[in-house]
Amino acid sequence: MNSDKRPGQNEEAYWLYGMHPVRAALANPRRRIRRLLATRNAAQTLGETTIEAEIVERRAIDRLVPADAVHQGVALLVDPLEDLRLDSLLRDDATRVVLVLDQVTDPHNVGAILRSAAAFGASAVITTWRHSPPETAVLVKAAAGAFEVLPYIRIQNLAGLLEKLHEHDFLSIGLDAEGPALMRDVPHDGRAALVLGAEGKGLRHLTRELCGTLARLPISPRVESLNVSNAAAVALYELMRDA
Amino acid sequence: MNSDKRPGQNEEAYWLYGMHPVRAALANPRRRIRRLLATRNAAQTLGETTIEAEIVERRAIDRLVPADAVHQGVALLVDPLEDLRLDSLLRDDATRVVLVLDQVTDPHNVGAILRSAAAFGASAVITTWRHSPPETAVLVKAAAGAFEVLPYIRIQNLAGLLEKLHEHDFLSIGLDAEGPALMRDVPHDGRAALVLGAEGKGLRHLTRELCGTLARLPISPRVESLNVSNAAAVALYELMRDA
Repeated sequence: MNSDKRPGQNEEAYWLYGMHPVRAALANPRRRIRRLLATRNAAQTLGETTIEAEIVERRAIDRLVPADAVHQGVALLVDPLEDLRLDSLLRDDATRVVLVLDQVTDPHNVGAILRSAAAFGASAVITTWRHSPPETAVLVKAAAGAFEVLPYIRIQNLAGLLEKLHEHDFLSIGLDAEGPALMRDVPHDGRAALVLGAEGKGLRHLTRELCGTLARLPISPRVESLNVSNAAAVALYELMRDA
Repeated sequence: MNSDKRPGQNEEAYWLYGMHPVRAALANPRRRIRRLLATRNAAQTLGETTIEAEIVERRAIDRLVPADAVHQGVALLVDPLEDLRLDSLLRDDATRVVLVLDQVTDPHNVGAILRSAAAFGASAVITTWRHSPPETAVLVKAAAGAFEVLPYIRIQNLAGLLEKLHEHDFLSIGLDAEGPALMRDVPHDGRAALVLGAEGKGLRHLTRELCGTLARLPISPRVESLNVSNAAAVALYELMRDA
């Protein structure tokens, strides 16, 4: 995947900010770091780092991050993480569950999903290049460290991905309010790819067609749907419960 | 409720005044009374009351009520109506699970929590007046309709709430990364109040002390915590799973 992306391409570097995302990125050996800016206080809070901090005034960092962003006096210029090759991930027997996102675009939701996916032992979050949030500071911050431990893989198209997943013995489970089975009644013992669509729209028609099975969560008729990250968390939890 | 708060210190309780409103409030068994102030004459007019009147000079009451208010020598410190809603909710046998938030301030998260609480059959989301999002368009929008079907109740203080929940046979379960039990091993058959703290900070020390039990979700050591709304969704799902 990703052959159209030249590694190390400088203009794709971006500023991470906030103490937690910066610390997590500094601790990740896969992460290529370019610059670290910090106020004197923030540098003291950070302690020893692999790259020397450039001590700056707070307003120098204000200019690098979105207005109102809570940067806590620290910003880190990083390259995007190189995508782990999907094929090697799928060949690895340790990969039991992956999460597939079908046009979930909100970075806060995708960040929370990455976090839950890492928490409940999924091996990757996979989505399409288009209609998905790129790797940005907002996404990384919402993932609260999970971005550094879980591959976020963006591929060309979902149909090809599902086909490949099936070849590798994954049962693809589309989460769908109209699904005939409850999540807890779907087989839990093999490899699974949990497929989630955007809030409101849900899975696209083609995605629904291609999924090996469709399942629903037992939600009250009082509400139409769950927040997509909450649905992902519950479905993953259910899938991993007996693991 | 509120036994740990000194009367009069509480900004949220308010002074009723005038003979008729005070009499009506005193006659209502569901009205929570904090203090009754009366002049000697007014106390005689009132007759016997459920709470003993503190006899004061007229001008002491002048200071408590709006200028020019016709207080007739009597003032009653009462809790707002929300607590009444709470009482009837807790007395209702159909109320099996409630969600309690300890200083979760982000309206997007609280909105998603309301949505999951309604989806998984909780009867209310209860939080404190302070350190919680007020009813705003952001909150209502994030709740995606759940605001209209699920009571969002804000109370004075959490300690009093937990005490009241225990009196009504609720097991209070604090969700805590250090909890000795897994959520799924906590008793599922009775009434339960699921208590969640803010992201990062978690439950406050006192809240942790007052909870009947502490439980954790089975999350990977790779991540520090879940997004609070995701944690709420999973814990509720677990709690309602066998219902």
